[in-house]
Amino acid sequence: MSLRPELTHASVPLIEEVAVLDEQGRERPAWLPGERPLTVYLDKRELVTLMTLGGAPEHLVLGYLRNQRLVESIEQIASVQVDWETESVAVTTRSGVDRIEERTARRVVTTGCGQGTVFGSLMDEVDTIALPPDARLDQETLYAIVDTIRLQQSVYKQAGSVHGCALFRGSELLTFVEDVGRHNAVDAIAGWMWLEDMSGADKIFYTTGRLTSEMVIKGAQMGIPFLLSRSGVTQMGYQMAKRVGMTLFARCTGKHFLLYTGRERFRHTPTEALVPAV
Amino acid sequence: MSLRPELTHASVPLIEEVAVLDEQGRERPAWLPGERPLTVYLDKRELVTLMTLGGAPEHLVLGYLRNQRLVESIEQIASVQVDWETESVAVTTRSGVDRIEERTARRVVTTGCGQGTVFGSLMDEVDTIALPPDARLDQETLYAIVDTIRLQQSVYKQAGSVHGCALFRGSELLTFVEDVGRHNAVDAIAGWMWLEDMSGADKIFYTTGRLTSEMVIKGAQMGIPFLLSRSGVTQMGYQMAKRVGMTLFARCTGKHFLLYTGRERFRHTPTEALVPAV
Repeated sequence: MSLRPELTHASVPLIEEVAVLDEQGRERPAWLPGERPLTVYLDKRELVTLMTLGGAPEHLVLGYLRNQRLVESIEQIASVQVDWETESVAVTTRSGVDRIEERTARRVVTTGCGQGTVFGSLMDEVDTIALPPDARLDQETLYAIVDTIRLQQSVYKQAGSVHGCALFRGSELLTFVEDVGRHNAVDAIAGWMWLEDMSGADKIFYTTGRLTSEMVIKGAQMGIPFLLSRSGVTQMGYQMAKRVGMTLFARCTGKHFLLYTGRERFRHTPTEALVPAV
Repeated sequence: MSLRPELTHASVPLIEEVAVLDEQGRERPAWLPGERPLTVYLDKRELVTLMTLGGAPEHLVLGYLRNQRLVESIEQIASVQVDWETESVAVTTRSGVDRIEERTARRVVTTGCGQGTVFGSLMDEVDTIALPPDARLDQETLYAIVDTIRLQQSVYKQAGSVHGCALFRGSELLTFVEDVGRHNAVDAIAGWMWLEDMSGADKIFYTTGRLTSEMVIKGAQMGIPFLLSRSGVTQMGYQMAKRVGMTLFARCTGKHFLLYTGRERFRHTPTEALVPAV
């Protein structure tokens, strides 16, 4: 049996109610999603402060460390202890992290939700990624995925201002995570997959956030061949997807979508042949 | 006459057209906003790589340096040379930057569009900010601002997937900037204001992006008492706004808005008294 880290299950309220004035001058309630600083200490060394909704802090930290390539194997991690009172999380490794200075030296500030990533070395790594060419997704499954998200209970429905990400196996929802930053939501899923030693090859990733270069790179690092978004795609998101051979769908709402790259994995169904969603 | 830096006026195409498949299996054009890496060198020292649409790279870099508190005065900057061929920008100061190691040591990863900021020292600074208590905004002006944005030519209208920010004096639009990351759009405006030695005290800032802690902090650093967004507010954005005494409006579309903090600066007008927008 492989070594699992010890994790806290720290939780905080995710939504706060406040009083606001509307355009009629009337006082009304409004709901705000949480946005909390979480300072990450790796073997007592302060690394970064992540701003997060707070719904999955242990998985977020694991995913951050994984996606930043700061720790290679989950087995290196002895414990992840989140303490909301001090707004900090202590990550302890079993035998230290090599070259931590070097690994944290170069920063890349991306478009999105707050994470500097080591751009140059990421690009090198990106070219070694091979996503499964034989993975297939059909239109009925895509619609089932979009509909599942639509029906999902969420902080977003009450408070707005958060992004949601989800991992599917076919039309089966495996996990759904929200965060103020879409990259943090992705990292929390990556952390969970890492912990559970879960492959991305037979999975589909859905996000409400835009498909920028960083989103595509993270999906590729997670080994997932399908990325679906409710939003749009940037030029570099598109180029990265071509480069890693990923299948990208954007503008996914209801029965609409646009397929940008990796068309060979998609099984289009003529509309009249589609069984209406139950 | 004060010293102005020498700036390039480097430009790149902002929109790319690609071919996609829609849900009917039909091939159609789609437009992508640019997302380009721009590596910032400060006195030949590599600082960070910013991912940007590319519309205002010189102002973006200036604003980044300003908002990160890496350079105190615009007069310290001799030149900003953007070179899209090498995807880099060389910033040269007149006499070096003190304690550059220390200033770039601590990173904070925020929710938003890609920038680590030095959280702890930011919080210290935040408490020294005093926004003008006597600034006033009336409802008619707010509506004129929202309408001006609605009518604005933009990359967003064609390609989506970008955020827009604008600076107003009353209902007069002074500048409008789009970027893939909302924080980069803010920084480009901050850079322009810094260059032009423009005070924020009599200005209004509009953004399509969410009002998170970092957005509010940047607005406060820019000395602007009014922040308007088409989107929502997070818990920490709200708390920060209270802390710095900023007036926050969110969910601004058409005639609707919600006023969260700093109500004393707002002049509500009963709807029947409002002159219809011309």
